[in-house]
Amino acid sequence: MISQLSISAPRQGLHEITREIAAAVSDSGLQEGLCTAFIKHTSASLIVQENADPSAARDLEQWLNRLVAENDQLYTHTSEGPDDMPSHIKTTLTATSVAVPIIDGQLTLGTWQGIFLWEHRRANMQRKVIVHIGA
Amino acid sequence: MISQLSISAPRQGLHEITREIAAAVSDSGLQEGLCTAFIKHTSASLIVQENADPSAARDLEQWLNRLVAENDQLYTHTSEGPDDMPSHIKTTLTATSVAVPIIDGQLTLGTWQGIFLWEHRRANMQRKVIVHIGA
Amino acid sequence: MISQLSISAPRQGLHEITREIAAAVSDSGLQEGLCTAFIKHTSASLIVQENADPSAARDLEQWLNRLVAENDQLYTHTSEGPDDMPSHIKTTLTATSVAVPIIDGQLTLGTWQGIFLWEHRRANMQRKVIVHIGA
Repeated sequence: MISQLSISAPRQGLHEITREIAAAVSDSGLQEGLCTAFIKHTSASLIVQENADPSAARDLEQWLNRLVAENDQLYTHTSEGPDDMPSHIKTTLTATSVAVPIIDGQLTLGTWQGIFLWEHRRANMQRKVIVHIGA
Repeated sequence: MISQLSISAPRQGLHEITREIAAAVSDSGLQEGLCTAFIKHTSASLIVQENADPSAARDLEQWLNRLVAENDQLYTHTSEGPDDMPSHIKTTLTATSVAVPIIDGQLTLGTWQGIFLWEHRRANMQRKVIVHIGA
Repeated sequence: MISQLSISAPRQGLHEITREIAAAVSDSGLQEGLCTAFIKHTSASLIVQENADPSAARDLEQWLNRLVAENDQLYTHTSEGPDDMPSHIKTTLTATSVAVPIIDGQLTLGTWQGIFLWEHRRANMQRKVIVHIGA
């Protein structure tokens, strides 16, 4: 079973989408299986990360922004703006899909885990995420 | 079919769990399909990496420890200790789940591949890994 | 359903394999499901990345080559050549498997997305990729 989600990512950074993914699982009625979310973009990514303390997400963003700097002299792919090539690199270092098992009709996320869309562009974006739920 | 594993990770570093995952595949009786392992934590991760020469694993750990240093002035999320924020970053740069196809009832790992739990905390941890096996 | 592909990677860098993966999906006849590709090596990886402008792929390679340098004094695993340990690190920072949903018998890749085999060795390699297609 497949759902197509449209997610608002109004700014660069982590946007939690656990609720949207969990709703797709609930709608499927499946009690045991695997949920795989896939993002149809190369400048935004998906990760599973701590959702309890927002400082963890902020530090993560700051750390990656420092590692993958804008205006690096190395870049030749610059026509789409200074945040474009860093976005491709950040996507590659994180993930385009995440998979989470389902038990008793629920995602088996740990106590502190949430699913996040990580928007790497500095803009108000609308992103497409495909959710596959299978036995 | 889903199995829940409890894995001892007595110290920071790579701990091979190929045998435990292969046992879950064997128990399932499935001859062809896909095995997906998921770790329910945000400060430990899963990877597929060389298991032949232990020096490869040690160098990998040392390299990532240098890239993601403790006591970085950038961190604000520090209440859980100096190894906590680096653990979240390392998890994000590696993976929370790994998927390996199954043929003839066996994981299709390459000759030199093993599945590892990478413990990022400097402590004796007990970690939960969920294994989904589907056709 | 499982296919085994043999992919020529004649040099270090990104090699697009979207066509080969799409052919496996087409051969399966499956209209809706999930396609998971897995690479049986620890010195080459799989990613989903922009396939429109080749400069994005080149910058990505250059950036990762700079981050994960050859001849780093840290390495002790050096018997297989200067590009070996960097290959293991690069594989760990990218991915050993990629999953893409299938709708209407087609991979749901975004407009600018392609699937790539990233060869990290500086040699002419032949790589094995396993493709699992399930409902």
